[in-house]
Amino acid sequence: MEREIQVGLIGLGTIGRGVARLLLERSAELCYGRGFDLELVRIADLDVTTPRGIELPGEILTTDAYEIIDDSRISVVIELIGGIEPARTYILSALEKGKSVVTANKAVLSQHGKELLQAAEKNGVLLFFEASVCGGIPIIRILREGLVANRIEKLYGILNGTTNYILTRMAQDGSSFQGALRQAQQRGYAEADPTLDISGQDAAQKLSILLRVGFNASIGVEDIFCEGIEKVAPQDITYARELGYTIKLLAIAKRLETRIEARVHPVLIPSGTLLADVRDEFNSVELTGDAVGTQIFYGKGAGEMPTASAVVADVIEIAQQNIRQSLPTVNQMLPADERLTLLHMEEVETPYYFRFTVIDKPGVLAEIARLLAVEGISIASVIQKERRQGGAVPIVMMTHRAKEKAMRLAISNIDQLPVVKAPTQVIRVEEV
Amino acid sequence: MEREIQVGLIGLGTIGRGVARLLLERSAELCYGRGFDLELVRIADLDVTTPRGIELPGEILTTDAYEIIDDSRISVVIELIGGIEPARTYILSALEKGKSVVTANKAVLSQHGKELLQAAEKNGVLLFFEASVCGGIPIIRILREGLVANRIEKLYGILNGTTNYILTRMAQDGSSFQGALRQAQQRGYAEADPTLDISGQDAAQKLSILLRVGFNASIGVEDIFCEGIEKVAPQDITYARELGYTIKLLAIAKRLETRIEARVHPVLIPSGTLLADVRDEFNSVELTGDAVGTQIFYGKGAGEMPTASAVVADVIEIAQQNIRQSLPTVNQMLPADERLTLLHMEEVETPYYFRFTVIDKPGVLAEIARLLAVEGISIASVIQKERRQGGAVPIVMMTHRAKEKAMRLAISNIDQLPVVKAPTQVIRVEEV
Repeated sequence: MEREIQVGLIGLGTIGRGVARLLLERSAELCYGRGFDLELVRIADLDVTTPRGIELPGEILTTDAYEIIDDSRISVVIELIGGIEPARTYILSALEKGKSVVTANKAVLSQHGKELLQAAEKNGVLLFFEASVCGGIPIIRILREGLVANRIEKLYGILNGTTNYILTRMAQDGSSFQGALRQAQQRGYAEADPTLDISGQDAAQKLSILLRVGFNASIGVEDIFCEGIEKVAPQDITYARELGYTIKLLAIAKRLETRIEARVHPVLIPSGTLLADVRDEFNSVELTGDAVGTQIFYGKGAGEMPTASAVVADVIEIAQQNIRQSLPTVNQMLPADERLTLLHMEEVETPYYFRFTVIDKPGVLAEIARLLAVEGISIASVIQKERRQGGAVPIVMMTHRAKEKAMRLAISNIDQLPVVKAPTQVIRVEEV
Repeated sequence: MEREIQVGLIGLGTIGRGVARLLLERSAELCYGRGFDLELVRIADLDVTTPRGIELPGEILTTDAYEIIDDSRISVVIELIGGIEPARTYILSALEKGKSVVTANKAVLSQHGKELLQAAEKNGVLLFFEASVCGGIPIIRILREGLVANRIEKLYGILNGTTNYILTRMAQDGSSFQGALRQAQQRGYAEADPTLDISGQDAAQKLSILLRVGFNASIGVEDIFCEGIEKVAPQDITYARELGYTIKLLAIAKRLETRIEARVHPVLIPSGTLLADVRDEFNSVELTGDAVGTQIFYGKGAGEMPTASAVVADVIEIAQQNIRQSLPTVNQMLPADERLTLLHMEEVETPYYFRFTVIDKPGVLAEIARLLAVEGISIASVIQKERRQGGAVPIVMMTHRAKEKAMRLAISNIDQLPVVKAPTQVIRVEEV
């Protein structure tokens, strides 16, 4: 006999609609041979009147999330409202009522993951969140199960589709940042207020989740160094290309013994690498495990059906664990390894791309080179092409590896030179 | 209290050594927080005297696989001897003794998968095989769990590292097939008898497994159309490049309603795509699911530690399921969908690359074009460069889509023309 697993959905936005579609239209197929059936019995949303282009069974809609949380027939709750509150309270209440929860909410996970996980474990239920990172790419499962025998040494992620789309437009069409952002907004890839994406915060939230699952490291999103793409200028993209590089917003994590490097910022990566070729709104994660070596995963990181696909995969796995009716169940996070601590950003070492804006007169390059040398930073190459009488010209420079602290000191000194006419553009380089 | 899961390993070859390394050196770390410990208690191999460069506990080695199969303490058996027999018998015996089995053996799975799976289900144990396809890339888990909410519509796989290495060498160094094969053998990427790889049979075995897991289709390896790379000539690679294509050995599967297209052969794919950029011994799978769209997975498909990583991931998941001490457990294959049947190769439609070897005289191209037109095949482009007095010259042609049956008829007619001096080279084209 098939056991029926009843599911409630909180939040009927874009992703919620995709989830409803899959569960209402495909549950028999999805559950074929598994010994259970999934039934979506209730959907809560503040707005129950706007048509969503999906046919819903009568009476399934409610405006009150607690009609799901308090419904004793429902064993799995899907939270898709996003943001911190009331999402956190809904998730906690559902867990405390003995329901497993599936969420796509990276904000609440990156800020309250520990509290939520503890509530799940205390109540012997599951908290799954595949959809919170990279939409349809099953990166959480890959880390948690597929690569479980590895020590993950390195992770590079293009985790935010909006910024990757903007940087792709800037590189391919020569658009300015503002122009590319408007295009992204017109195509629905960027929100009216794009701050969370542009600033790198969205990627940092996702990196915090990947650090927890992949590195077993508990690093709060507020501790991850984060720099957005708004400062990337078309000329940086042009110079980078000339030097053989492509500019991407990368989330970067590395393990160095018990220290964890974790940062999100624009970087120059070598053109022609698979990561540099990830275009438009696509996401990608490059992982290095000590046993498997380097692996790359690529796909759509957002959107209705890709994200819904990840949510429903979680629901099925929970149902699978539930029908066994036995504990302990296996959550997507294991206990964190408390020995792992964050490497301070000032200790991080990378090569750098500098674009100085200087008065074009003899001795300027020598003076800059001297101030870099004082901090132990050695130059790899220089581009100084435009010659103009008076006015400011750019000098572009690539350096060898140096610590962030040394770089900041050197640049702060250089930017005080009278011949330097604008703050120096600094973009880190990563030889992925 | 931690429950101890005892593991036995049959086959101490390259991968076996990697598995022993991970289980002996890392089990505490791997099991941290999981509520169980893994202990590798016995290793069987016919050769127990050759040093393997790994320190093994005394008395762990035996030459008799039944000392593992009959050992009642052991609950998980790892089979890494490869080939059909005695692997099949060992696996069956272990399953019948109530042990779960982890195997990397694509040959036995693609030929006896159904029998083995039934034995596992009958005995309420698990048969896992992540390592059988794409080594360290967790493609089985990705299909079975991560993308479970999707109908998989299309799969392109570079599933064989040896042939990809050979084709890469031919493309990058201009080597002949034989020269590149020798290089692959010297670097340990190809065996002394490379037939299984070169012929496409190895990729076909893996495709049969992916069809079962990803498409729920039961298609025997003997029914998969299979053509090797030995016929690919350096000049084909050169012409392909000129036309904007790269030659790869692809495993291809498509779902068209209830028909399944399944084939392994060299193909021209557009240069600059991510798949075309998969070089050397790397593997990659490009999947299209109806919800997630297109995803690409990339990594090392073979080798000691990548493959061992996949084996150990399976062992951990089995242990995880086992400590719950309850049935039903969840195998890596669900019941096959018997409605799905193979589309006959003659019905498969693709564009084609033809290289004709003809006497260079007026009217030859017209005659070839006429014979193609008779079968409804229309030409997309022609390269006819070399002009030689007498002797044979190549004419290279790209066509629009046409059925295999029509192509075979047309080529058979063309090859009977007196002006045609060698069998026409046919390579299918795939617009990945």
